[in-house]
Amino acid sequence: MIQIIGIKGIPIIKPGDKIAEIIYNSIQNQSPLEDEDIIVIAQSIISRAEGRVVNWTKINPTPEAIKLGKELDKDPRIVSLILNESVSISRKGHGKLIVELESGIVCANAGIDRSNSGGINLVTLLPEDPDKSAKQIKEKIKQLSGLDIGIIISDTHGRPFRNGAINVALGISGFENGILSYVGKKDLFNYELESSIINIVDELASAAELIMGESDEAIPVVLIRGYKYKIGNDTSKSLIREKKFDLFR
Amino acid sequence: MIQIIGIKGIPIIKPGDKIAEIIYNSIQNQSPLEDEDIIVIAQSIISRAEGRVVNWTKINPTPEAIKLGKELDKDPRIVSLILNESVSISRKGHGKLIVELESGIVCANAGIDRSNSGGINLVTLLPEDPDKSAKQIKEKIKQLSGLDIGIIISDTHGRPFRNGAINVALGISGFENGILSYVGKKDLFNYELESSIINIVDELASAAELIMGESDEAIPVVLIRGYKYKIGNDTSKSLIREKKFDLFR
Repeated sequence: MIQIIGIKGIPIIKPGDKIAEIIYNSIQNQSPLEDEDIIVIAQSIISRAEGRVVNWTKINPTPEAIKLGKELDKDPRIVSLILNESVSISRKGHGKLIVELESGIVCANAGIDRSNSGGINLVTLLPEDPDKSAKQIKEKIKQLSGLDIGIIISDTHGRPFRNGAINVALGISGFENGILSYVGKKDLFNYELESSIINIVDELASAAELIMGESDEAIPVVLIRGYKYKIGNDTSKSLIREKKFDLFR
Repeated sequence: MIQIIGIKGIPIIKPGDKIAEIIYNSIQNQSPLEDEDIIVIAQSIISRAEGRVVNWTKINPTPEAIKLGKELDKDPRIVSLILNESVSISRKGHGKLIVELESGIVCANAGIDRSNSGGINLVTLLPEDPDKSAKQIKEKIKQLSGLDIGIIISDTHGRPFRNGAINVALGISGFENGILSYVGKKDLFNYELESSIINIVDELASAAELIMGESDEAIPVVLIRGYKYKIGNDTSKSLIREKKFDLFR
């Protein structure tokens, strides 16, 4: 059995807050950590802790952003911020810019979010290096507890073809593999599998979102207990399909 | 807390098996059903129960399938089956055909699967009407237990941009909404959310996959307990982005 536990009592995170300690103490108060637990953390609180918060009303939009903003009926100051975070535009329409980030992640509006940013004039940008943020938290918790735990920094992203965003892993630390390959294993009928490869960290992020919610639930940290995985040093790079293998870029 | 419980002891399902009764009895033997439980069922056993199993070695491929098979280095008999299940081809390459099904689902190889099909010469096709299959199971279990439970028939699908498939909801029954909209709700800071819409049934399917596995785990049925949702009559239609709103079709 896997348990998905929402961690209560996480305070409003401010720039510079010691997020690993805050998360660790909140967990210890509620359901003390065990070896191989997994902690899923919403990107919004990492971004706030790391000061990745911008007052979008003070942005002076570029001419390109003004032009695109008109085309998409979108505030040019927000468009300016999106373009600044992106390496290329993949698609545009329906008030959205689908862009590629430096990490290779393709997502709407560069993950820039007006919700839970801390104020009506504020937006959060994605953490600059989500794997690094995850690793720092993992190491701090190891230091505090002596335990090896997996960390996932998650964000809800839309997808082609399907309505409704799902939570995905932006940054990871502590996993041998974010992707679990069954290739070469046998199925129930002894048939050798040829192509079954599962993105387990995205599935863990989605499982956590069921408890996080999106509005004022204030559950940005979720503990997953009982999922068997191998401890290691994989990064989010393995989660991103290279352009040359992607039929949709 | 949400619990994700793998249901043990599901036998190998054969065409014509009474799948609802088998699932119900297995659950009762292990962790008796409670109101608002959710049962996630792997497509493979629904397909086998419904006789959606084909001996692919006996297919006489069409000329189009032979041509495409050469182009993709893929067995033309399998290609023939894929084309037969599809209304259009979205992309092709890397040995895959990304196709659109009549339901609007876009997926690789029409969901035709050689793994866990029951034999080396067999493949499973997706259930003809996964919502109908889910509804029948829901109603039978209601009849047997008197309880309202949600049913998700799931399958692992790849996505653009990201490596590793994730489990998604092919068919649903018993949910008021497969997609949870937070639009109009307030965030932590009283900001009214504009665009947060979450595909909760896909997330539930992904959570279940963490226990199902893909090879010989033989856990095609997973119970999710403790997730709050509203009972209703939504279908998988709501999960599929209409072509006119999709920037990637």
